[in-house]
Amino acid sequence: MKKFNVKKEVEGITKFIKDYFKEHNLKGVVLGISGGKDSAVVAALFARALGSENVLGVTLPCHSIKTDKSDAKLVAEKYNFELLNIDLTNVYDEFKKQIYKINNFTDEELKNSDINVKPRLRMASVYYLAALYTELKCGTYVVAGTGNKCELYVGYFTKGGDSTFDIGVINDYTVDEVIKIGEYLEVPDQVIHKAPSDGLSGLTDEDKLGVKYKDIASYMNGEPVYEEVKKKIERLHNNSLHKFNIPIYKRQWLKWKNLKLECMVENLCHSTKDIIIVLK
Amino acid sequence: MKKFNVKKEVEGITKFIKDYFKEHNLKGVVLGISGGKDSAVVAALFARALGSENVLGVTLPCHSIKTDKSDAKLVAEKYNFELLNIDLTNVYDEFKKQIYKINNFTDEELKNSDINVKPRLRMASVYYLAALYTELKCGTYVVAGTGNKCELYVGYFTKGGDSTFDIGVINDYTVDEVIKIGEYLEVPDQVIHKAPSDGLSGLTDEDKLGVKYKDIASYMNGEPVYEEVKKKIERLHNNSLHKFNIPIYKRQWLKWKNLKLECMVENLCHSTKDIIIVLK
Repeated sequence: MKKFNVKKEVEGITKFIKDYFKEHNLKGVVLGISGGKDSAVVAALFARALGSENVLGVTLPCHSIKTDKSDAKLVAEKYNFELLNIDLTNVYDEFKKQIYKINNFTDEELKNSDINVKPRLRMASVYYLAALYTELKCGTYVVAGTGNKCELYVGYFTKGGDSTFDIGVINDYTVDEVIKIGEYLEVPDQVIHKAPSDGLSGLTDEDKLGVKYKDIASYMNGEPVYEEVKKKIERLHNNSLHKFNIPIYKRQWLKWKNLKLECMVENLCHSTKDIIIVLK
Repeated sequence: MKKFNVKKEVEGITKFIKDYFKEHNLKGVVLGISGGKDSAVVAALFARALGSENVLGVTLPCHSIKTDKSDAKLVAEKYNFELLNIDLTNVYDEFKKQIYKINNFTDEELKNSDINVKPRLRMASVYYLAALYTELKCGTYVVAGTGNKCELYVGYFTKGGDSTFDIGVINDYTVDEVIKIGEYLEVPDQVIHKAPSDGLSGLTDEDKLGVKYKDIASYMNGEPVYEEVKKKIERLHNNSLHKFNIPIYKRQWLKWKNLKLECMVENLCHSTKDIIIVLK
């Protein structure tokens, strides 16, 4: 495994947060605390950089298992930040009621649609709190992302759900590195070493992906992995490329004239493919 | 005003949609039909390219005014596509109930938070239907975006709301050009010439922005506008840049080694700033 200087990385992230908040005159950060390691590490990093009083966590149960919430509390107590709760169970159920008004769909028919509603309701909730605290605390609150590099690589995230955020600090670290950062910041053992799960399906993320994060990390760090594992990771990655490259129709006459705007349109739509072509 | 060959643009968009759907083996498209011109024009373009039977529209009222829904029906009848309805009023109210469990906030305190919940619930609903119809019709449905270039430029959209979509066809056209496309495609008069509004606040978009879309279009097309208007547009634009450039912490050692992944991380987060630097 590659050399990983955890102290240096933590210092780098801390400075990045401090600088960005100072430059843009921001006050605080909001994030969903799932009870898993990623959100715990992100919260710990922001508490370190901004002080606990400028970190707001929220648990967002939605037909969720109870241990998640108690682990979230453990994290909030450890880093001494405020933890709110917005129970999305009834909101979700009310949404489903409206769906059943369209037709009496079977559970099987709705299975794939249901999966991504919860992360999207969670996104809306976290942004709601950011706007609310901006009002209450007279200073801008932004939303922190909690995805790691392995999840990103295999596309294990929801468009308009956990992929929507205002600042990201662990997106460039593989799972094993996030754990190292968490250990360094003394994230409670039962949180940092818990198998990642969405707390919704009863399955771990690794069950659902069919591949271990440890293997994804090895693959991404250029270490040897079994051919079968490599193929699976590459398939997952290729199948998720549509999440990154949003096709936008553009007029030809504009293409070379108005790069700045091109970039803006591209930016909004997560796509850089064309910009790279333009700049070549 | 610049020369605008509407027939050529419509042919270009139609070919773009057809090619993309063929290349990626997609079946249909879902979009929210607001009763305004942008969604009407996008629906008309997709109906032209894919056939009406592969277009699914949905009205998403949420404490909304009734005329919006009847205008949406007018559009669906004109282009002969299926129109569903998901009423988000109760979902929204249930969400607010959970917020009041945190504290008995005043309307004033919640005003800024409330604004963006509805577009986010709408995004979740449109994606829900895309997944559902993918299941029901045994072929992939994607979500179409309906934002135009003027809205994009001044940042008049909701992160994780109307800015989240799978394919965009009018993002590169100013409001006046969208109207020309709509007229060419015979979008009903009362829809294409309606003042744009979110159907939520009782105000038009232009009231809220404090500037006319016509002026934004002129400014973007390099035509003369009053100094005061120019300043206002530039201020709106600059104030919305944070929606396009999401800060992501990245390790230095990785910066020059793994461009592909850099791009992916950037893509996900709407940011191209660093990529441009890397490629310079």
